[in-house]
Amino acid sequence: MLSGPSGVGKGTVRQAMMKDHHHQDLQYSVSMTTRPKRPGEVDGVDYYFRTKEEFEHEIKNGGMLEYAQYVDHYYGTPLKYVNQTLDAGKDVLLEIEVNGAMQVRSKCPDGVFIFLTPPDLQELRQRIINRGTDDMATIDKRMQKAAEEIKMMTNYDYAVVNDKVELAVDRIEKIIASEHLRVSRVIDQYTSFN
Amino acid sequence: MLSGPSGVGKGTVRQAMMKDHHHQDLQYSVSMTTRPKRPGEVDGVDYYFRTKEEFEHEIKNGGMLEYAQYVDHYYGTPLKYVNQTLDAGKDVLLEIEVNGAMQVRSKCPDGVFIFLTPPDLQELRQRIINRGTDDMATIDKRMQKAAEEIKMMTNYDYAVVNDKVELAVDRIEKIIASEHLRVSRVIDQYTSFN
Repeated sequence: MLSGPSGVGKGTVRQAMMKDHHHQDLQYSVSMTTRPKRPGEVDGVDYYFRTKEEFEHEIKNGGMLEYAQYVDHYYGTPLKYVNQTLDAGKDVLLEIEVNGAMQVRSKCPDGVFIFLTPPDLQELRQRIINRGTDDMATIDKRMQKAAEEIKMMTNYDYAVVNDKVELAVDRIEKIIASEHLRVSRVIDQYTSFN
Repeated sequence: MLSGPSGVGKGTVRQAMMKDHHHQDLQYSVSMTTRPKRPGEVDGVDYYFRTKEEFEHEIKNGGMLEYAQYVDHYYGTPLKYVNQTLDAGKDVLLEIEVNGAMQVRSKCPDGVFIFLTPPDLQELRQRIINRGTDDMATIDKRMQKAAEEIKMMTNYDYAVVNDKVELAVDRIEKIIASEHLRVSRVIDQYTSFN
């Protein structure tokens, strides 16, 4: 699960990851939406485009891993394709908003939750204090946003700074490789006879 | 903590890791022992060579992170140098026997415990069953050893197959990089004002 505050660059990092030819075992989970298809968009590639009725039918039948409403339209992750991909032995990459990520967390305890952080978040407090050139209203606003982002982060497994897209991708790749070595994920391979 | 069954190649992998020039932030924790110094060995490099009385004095004063006795000699990890290295902001690599690793586990809940596995362990059961060329006594003996090794593994965070030293080193490097991105390890950097 790749998540993070809005504007941090989740989409850019996700696209860079999926372009990487190493990732034949990683599949991006295409989202479902009720918003109209834009020119050039392809159903099943950019989104699964569905009517409001179809989407609400999926919700009622427990078919959505997570979903949310933005500006009168539904967006969400259909459970079916996630399960199909996992059953095929591949990893699934979800790029989701923080609210969606928390819905997934409760349903997928063995999922890996990565919080993409703005590059300035870590030094923000110190920098604001030291510099003192911004007016208090600006400082307060940015500090409040930072505090919210840091609070969000505590619900995740990993924090990846998006200072440069290629560095963020490299960090995420290492997390994926490392998680595949967890005893809790491989122990069945040692104890199974199949 | 790099550990694993005897004969798996812990020393070789550790030496290969420390030779790697990337690892300026990783320091090998030199063990303490009461066994006599061999020709060419250097105190403080290969081991801290101490008398039995000095070693037992360290044990009594809580100065050993872990220790064990093999063939009438003590071997162990002095806590002092581990803490000094961690305080300097570096990672510490410990290469220890499985009994020692379990002692460290209880003292260092935030340590990362890596179990190096023999390359044949994963396929061993299936291979033995399919092949059926070994006599039953040999099969039983190897199966019992494998069962013990798999049981040990469940006490660790990660399982790294030592099929090739350079591949094992690469996997361990990814684990170290990935663990540095854990929210639980970095959150202080975001909330601290220092």
